[in-house]
Amino acid sequence: MDKPRTGKHISQRYNDELEEIKNHLLTMGGLVEQQLEKASMALIKGDTKLANEVYKEGSQVNALEKLIDEECAQCLARRQPAAGDLRLIVTVIKAVSDIERAGDQAEHLARFAAQLAEHSRPKNNYHEVYQLAQHVQSMFHDALDAFARGDEKLALKVIKEDDNVNFEYEAITRQHITYMMEDPRSINRSLDVLWAIRALERVGDHASNLCEYLIYLVKGQDIRHSENK
Amino acid sequence: MDKPRTGKHISQRYNDELEEIKNHLLTMGGLVEQQLEKASMALIKGDTKLANEVYKEGSQVNALEKLIDEECAQCLARRQPAAGDLRLIVTVIKAVSDIERAGDQAEHLARFAAQLAEHSRPKNNYHEVYQLAQHVQSMFHDALDAFARGDEKLALKVIKEDDNVNFEYEAITRQHITYMMEDPRSINRSLDVLWAIRALERVGDHASNLCEYLIYLVKGQDIRHSENK
Repeated sequence: MDKPRTGKHISQRYNDELEEIKNHLLTMGGLVEQQLEKASMALIKGDTKLANEVYKEGSQVNALEKLIDEECAQCLARRQPAAGDLRLIVTVIKAVSDIERAGDQAEHLARFAAQLAEHSRPKNNYHEVYQLAQHVQSMFHDALDAFARGDEKLALKVIKEDDNVNFEYEAITRQHITYMMEDPRSINRSLDVLWAIRALERVGDHASNLCEYLIYLVKGQDIRHSENK
Repeated sequence: MDKPRTGKHISQRYNDELEEIKNHLLTMGGLVEQQLEKASMALIKGDTKLANEVYKEGSQVNALEKLIDEECAQCLARRQPAAGDLRLIVTVIKAVSDIERAGDQAEHLARFAAQLAEHSRPKNNYHEVYQLAQHVQSMFHDALDAFARGDEKLALKVIKEDDNVNFEYEAITRQHITYMMEDPRSINRSLDVLWAIRALERVGDHASNLCEYLIYLVKGQDIRHSENK
């Protein structure tokens, strides 16, 4: 926050406004974390009721998205932020979309969890999907943590972790293609698994995007589409 | 553009800057349109060379994304835009992400087009995918057109059109699940088709998002997640 400010009172209120925007973003992120956790548990346990709860939280997430965007527009209009404050607002405008889309993916996951609850369940209770879900959830959690603390090292770690998530995703895909070929009766079930893990893989991408924005915020450097990560 | 400005010279340069940002956004959108067209043709014709061209354009799209974001940040910092100009900048910051992601989906499509070129081809040459691709391309084109002309009616039309794209997408999905069940040897091929149409369906979503931002820009009203579309 390297902007010179005039007047202590205005400066304090302005600071409070910026803090509030950040807090709302983290609250929204926390809700999406809950959605991811519930959708993953619903899938593992075949719990349709839990899957339905994910949608309810979705409307809170959407309301927060609109609120935060409005707060950012208001802040730009009234405060005319510069330097670090301006980067914060631009970063939040970008980040809010990725968090909302991660929430959408949690809802997709919940939808496939509910569909999978209708099928017979494999002996391992989709342990491979559970592992991927844990992995992605921890990436998403770390991305929010990096945001809260302005921790660029943690952000870089999350970005690198996305490769491992992609490897896991590819392995589960291959495994389920084999199941489908061996037993065509498993096609519907395996397809639901493929869509579910696709949703998880996308959440990993959104976590990674969040971390790229954070690095822009902290360092003023746009590392998207660059090899120097 | 309802912001009062001081000094004709500054106002003209400022106007030019805003126009340039808009033009860059539309240029980027035009590149993604080309990517979509090439990826779709590559799929229909089984043309791997054409599929590869889609990736080359991807790097231009990414460079434009960074340029436009930088121009927007500069404009916010130097011009401190208000009212309609500010909404334009916020809208562009959002829109640029959706256009870039539509480009990513065109690259996915190209990837599956290249994979499908390795398989034997059905008699209808994936006509159903071609129709969906045409439909989505026209949505994306109209979304850019609505942006260029500030045409909210066209934007609303595009948003409504997304439902039809989703119906088509679901129908092709069901059709290919049937193929897979009837002939497990077609599983790999049908899965590639399912991923390809999923990419197209996502482009429809991005076109729809662009139109929601445009309506915010023109009317100052945020219609996301609302039923009043």
